[in-house]
Amino acid sequence: MESLNVAIAGLGTVGQGVWKYLVEQSGPLGQRAGGNLIPYRAAVRDLQKKREVEIPASQLTTDPMDLANDPQVDILCELMGGVELPRKVTLAALENGKSVITANKAMICEHGAELFEAAERTGARLYYEASTAGGIPIIKAVREGLVANRFPLIYGILNGTCNYILTRMEREQKSFEEIVGDARRLGYVEADESLDLDGWDTAHKAAILAFLAHGRWISMQEMPVEGIREVTLDDLAWAKELGYRVKLLAVITRHLESNCIFADVHPTLVPEDLVLANVDDVFNGVSVTGNIVGETTYIGRGAGQNPTASAVITDLVDATIDRLNGVTLPPHASYGPAPALAELDDVRRPFYLRLRVADRSGVLADIARIMAHHDVSIEQLVQKPYREPDQAHLIMTTHCTSERQMRDAVRDLEADHAVQCKPLLLRILNVEV
Amino acid sequence: MESLNVAIAGLGTVGQGVWKYLVEQSGPLGQRAGGNLIPYRAAVRDLQKKREVEIPASQLTTDPMDLANDPQVDILCELMGGVELPRKVTLAALENGKSVITANKAMICEHGAELFEAAERTGARLYYEASTAGGIPIIKAVREGLVANRFPLIYGILNGTCNYILTRMEREQKSFEEIVGDARRLGYVEADESLDLDGWDTAHKAAILAFLAHGRWISMQEMPVEGIREVTLDDLAWAKELGYRVKLLAVITRHLESNCIFADVHPTLVPEDLVLANVDDVFNGVSVTGNIVGETTYIGRGAGQNPTASAVITDLVDATIDRLNGVTLPPHASYGPAPALAELDDVRRPFYLRLRVADRSGVLADIARIMAHHDVSIEQLVQKPYREPDQAHLIMTTHCTSERQMRDAVRDLEADHAVQCKPLLLRILNVEV
Repeated sequence: MESLNVAIAGLGTVGQGVWKYLVEQSGPLGQRAGGNLIPYRAAVRDLQKKREVEIPASQLTTDPMDLANDPQVDILCELMGGVELPRKVTLAALENGKSVITANKAMICEHGAELFEAAERTGARLYYEASTAGGIPIIKAVREGLVANRFPLIYGILNGTCNYILTRMEREQKSFEEIVGDARRLGYVEADESLDLDGWDTAHKAAILAFLAHGRWISMQEMPVEGIREVTLDDLAWAKELGYRVKLLAVITRHLESNCIFADVHPTLVPEDLVLANVDDVFNGVSVTGNIVGETTYIGRGAGQNPTASAVITDLVDATIDRLNGVTLPPHASYGPAPALAELDDVRRPFYLRLRVADRSGVLADIARIMAHHDVSIEQLVQKPYREPDQAHLIMTTHCTSERQMRDAVRDLEADHAVQCKPLLLRILNVEV
Repeated sequence: MESLNVAIAGLGTVGQGVWKYLVEQSGPLGQRAGGNLIPYRAAVRDLQKKREVEIPASQLTTDPMDLANDPQVDILCELMGGVELPRKVTLAALENGKSVITANKAMICEHGAELFEAAERTGARLYYEASTAGGIPIIKAVREGLVANRFPLIYGILNGTCNYILTRMEREQKSFEEIVGDARRLGYVEADESLDLDGWDTAHKAAILAFLAHGRWISMQEMPVEGIREVTLDDLAWAKELGYRVKLLAVITRHLESNCIFADVHPTLVPEDLVLANVDDVFNGVSVTGNIVGETTYIGRGAGQNPTASAVITDLVDATIDRLNGVTLPPHASYGPAPALAELDDVRRPFYLRLRVADRSGVLADIARIMAHHDVSIEQLVQKPYREPDQAHLIMTTHCTSERQMRDAVRDLEADHAVQCKPLLLRILNVEV
């Protein structure tokens, strides 16, 4: 059996997990892959640091570029974190014809176009199963398992931290701040909190899923992204009364006739009878609707040493099979003319709107008039008391409405004297796309 | 680009769907597969029959062996139904070095050992994504997407008809007989009803999943199999009161230390907070726990023309890639020494027991004594009125108990004068394996 040398750039928990697996399971893994996978070299920041896995000093370097330029290295696992250095290392490795495996969603998202172009040019291949939804083999499922399909709708819970926070808020009736404090203490929140809480991590993964399904990169500038900081305990309770649960959702649509795609990230009301409404705690879930297969759903752990290592090893076996047999395949599941990006203004769906208003006669008529003026049709309306007796909450859901209409209506509502503070607008999942 | 000739044995709805797809989507499909897939020949029972797809007479034959023996055929899709003829055709095609794709769960289940052995001998390959859970790419997920893992627990809802019946019984409060009548009229029940209603279709798929995950065939004689005919509306309601929903479940366990596996099919109480408890109607769902990745769950349509065609096309693309690049891989995800089969007697889990008893003093003491004698520990007990006032239903759930203890206890209960008819014993899903 042929042997392939594996280098790991970045020996954090995932990198160590993969190295350990290669040492302990090399026999069975080789049998599966049709070639021996040798843990060959690793790049670390600190050579002296004590690690769970012991690696002889001769196999370690502090410069990941050493791995990318080492002619003995066949497959490089990029597990470093950060963006610029990983990009440089990945690019060099691809240009040297190595297979590269990465879990780095920010890097793929920002530099995917360049990286996949380099891979195509050199005949190398870039694998990214571990970048999205952790241990769920969603990349393989969409790219290979549903290869007959185009994908009118993909939506998913892609950030375990936000899902954990929303689940605990609802279960324990505690505020966002209280639960975030707990999550920080448990180490569940990334050092750059905005990645989790403001939706950017979810957005990175949404961009990867959009590329995977539609072969087009959507930049962060093109994608409306909103996190969970504005969602209150009351919103969770009121959504529930209306038959929904609130999840931070990435939604990626493709209109097959106009060949337009759209992706965004919002805290979203999910009808409670849908499977994803009940995917809780740190779990991720992705619903993929194919035009042939119908809806399929995938659930599992989206992060953590072992789930991520499981995904990296999937890619290692694929990379080995591909290298040994000379297989090169498109990195995504799309074909035909590249899709255009739809305009946010034209996206249509139902909305949830929470207003705090002066509790006096005529106010409801004003609000209703503004909504009617923008042709926004109200589906349900509930008035809830507010702690100040002269104010009240108005909770509304709308029928399908365009983002433009809704934005204009909210602008006029905000300007109305009866409205006491910035309205909260949440999206409601629309599965009829 | 190289071309591969595809033959389809059996032009039912799925076969026609695949042929049509090959005609209409050959360009994009070829791009994905790295080779052109040509719809080349098909075998049908009746040459004169009008079909949705029009195929020139010169491409049709009534003898599927013609396809298996045609040197021009590269890939054969076996979509015939039945067992003996498909087996003969599949075997001949494999021995002629063709790639074979099948959706035939009964054939794989009965003759898998022989067929995969023939494939290994001749270097051909047999693909079976469409045989289990329809459009859900579960075979690919377990074999490739979770390749790092061993699988202590797999359980699934694998028969859409039974799930549809149980869902409608509960939702509409109608009896099994009423809903089965409807399902028959809608064409949801197989001609041989026992396949669906007595659990054999589920058992076939359980055997395939067990082979996929553990590399060992479990015969129908080795697998305890029970359908849904004995489950009443009352059982569904009482299970719900206790926090469960009743699903026809295949359960496949592997004890990693003793290297024993076990598989069986029973109507099973699933804790209502588990995802699969809420997979309803004709949907299938499979929970796969890997020792590295943890629990992952897959949901989608388990049958029908389009979902099945989606799975066949997945295999067609894989078969093309494998043939063009000379890839051969093990057909399952297991390695190391083959597992042994555990004894039914030793399988431990909680149970649900429904007894109809004489409603008089001392009866409960008798029942409790019998349970205690067999060391069966009761977890919950509820008495429910029966339509005859001198009788009552006793509903019990137990703590984890061996099948042997439970069988012995039920035998003694049946012999007790107070017990009025055969007790109903259902399993409760045990996720702590």
